[in-house]
Amino acid sequence: MSRRAIGVIGGMGPAATLAFIARVQALTPATRDQEHLRLIVDCNPAVPDRNAAVAGQGPSPGPVLADMARGLQRAGAEVLVMPCNAAHAFRQAITDATPLPFIDLIETACDATAALAPPFVGLLAADGCLAAGLYQSAFAQRGIATRTLTPTRQAAFMDLLYRIKAGDAGEDVRRAMIALAQTLIDEGADVLVAGCTEVPLVLAEGDLERPLVDSLEALARRTVALGTGAHQL
Amino acid sequence: MSRRAIGVIGGMGPAATLAFIARVQALTPATRDQEHLRLIVDCNPAVPDRNAAVAGQGPSPGPVLADMARGLQRAGAEVLVMPCNAAHAFRQAITDATPLPFIDLIETACDATAALAPPFVGLLAADGCLAAGLYQSAFAQRGIATRTLTPTRQAAFMDLLYRIKAGDAGEDVRRAMIALAQTLIDEGADVLVAGCTEVPLVLAEGDLERPLVDSLEALARRTVALGTGAHQL
Repeated sequence: MSRRAIGVIGGMGPAATLAFIARVQALTPATRDQEHLRLIVDCNPAVPDRNAAVAGQGPSPGPVLADMARGLQRAGAEVLVMPCNAAHAFRQAITDATPLPFIDLIETACDATAALAPPFVGLLAADGCLAAGLYQSAFAQRGIATRTLTPTRQAAFMDLLYRIKAGDAGEDVRRAMIALAQTLIDEGADVLVAGCTEVPLVLAEGDLERPLVDSLEALARRTVALGTGAHQL
Repeated sequence: MSRRAIGVIGGMGPAATLAFIARVQALTPATRDQEHLRLIVDCNPAVPDRNAAVAGQGPSPGPVLADMARGLQRAGAEVLVMPCNAAHAFRQAITDATPLPFIDLIETACDATAALAPPFVGLLAADGCLAAGLYQSAFAQRGIATRTLTPTRQAAFMDLLYRIKAGDAGEDVRRAMIALAQTLIDEGADVLVAGCTEVPLVLAEGDLERPLVDSLEALARRTVALGTGAHQL
């Protein structure tokens, strides 16, 4: 088992990066400091807005993500991860920038979902992630159909995301998120996928009548498995 | 106000680094991702044990800390901080390694304590931090006397630290920590100083009859003030 230093392309948003680090630490079998994984984290909130970029209404985050990847490699990272779903629309900028292995959040979350063998999933994801079709195509490759929110509800969902990013993870936001998820269950979703790192900050598994796959949690599990050498890359 | 990217020399321990990032995020005035500070964090649990090194019973962490400082600079850091008290015994290795400004945790915590103008402080700190005299000399320069735990109680304190590092921040550990702090208050300490980043994970201000200065909190406040440009370096 050879351990690898994990480079985290983060800051999208800062709270999600913090939650990711916390999950990795909690999932790592360790009884003293020295048994934890080395994490090198660039929590860079200045990455251009991913949703605006996919919509053609803002600069691409690609060049900044590529710079971060190279900086993390120079600082000692041996594997890269990025705890932000929508930013995976620009993942090729990262994989082109360094020769380091990249643990793909979308593929990891879809693998975790496919393990539950649902005929179809309900997807909660930001506009940019939806418009880029990241989950829809990854699920289609696994024979799973994807249902998303109606346009009006998707707009309400985006409002919730920006409230969470502004630090509001209170009861109103939580209830509104549950209500949106419920509309997907009402339409027959067998599994809900939190395909946006802000969602699990207000929504937990027990809040819904169906299983919830948390993409951030799935990424943390795979990161620990690969970082500790329990699984091979 | 020019913002600066903060490089965090971390992993000592991993939980303290996580708590530091969380405090910096919570203290930063921000209503959207882009208003947060850029934090580049090397959470490296493989730094040699600071307490053993000060006691002459293990390798110096200096060379590893210097490598981390250089790596953070290469990744884009413009200011360095290190959320670990005992490791400040080796701070010269960091300040020699790069030309970047270094926000000193010990000096910052002593400034925050001196603002309360106590005749003398009760210090809760790890063996290495005590043996290196980091707080005692910084307080003496400010005309403040320092009281530490008796040797037997200090040994009990170190046991608590290693339990916290192993993930045990439960009620037993909390009560034992309060009891140790109380012995310093009984001996006349006007202010308690949590001069070890694990202490605030189990001890909060309201737990004691005297004010508690949390060195990690003080460092987070100064980091935000300097990183956002609200204060000058």
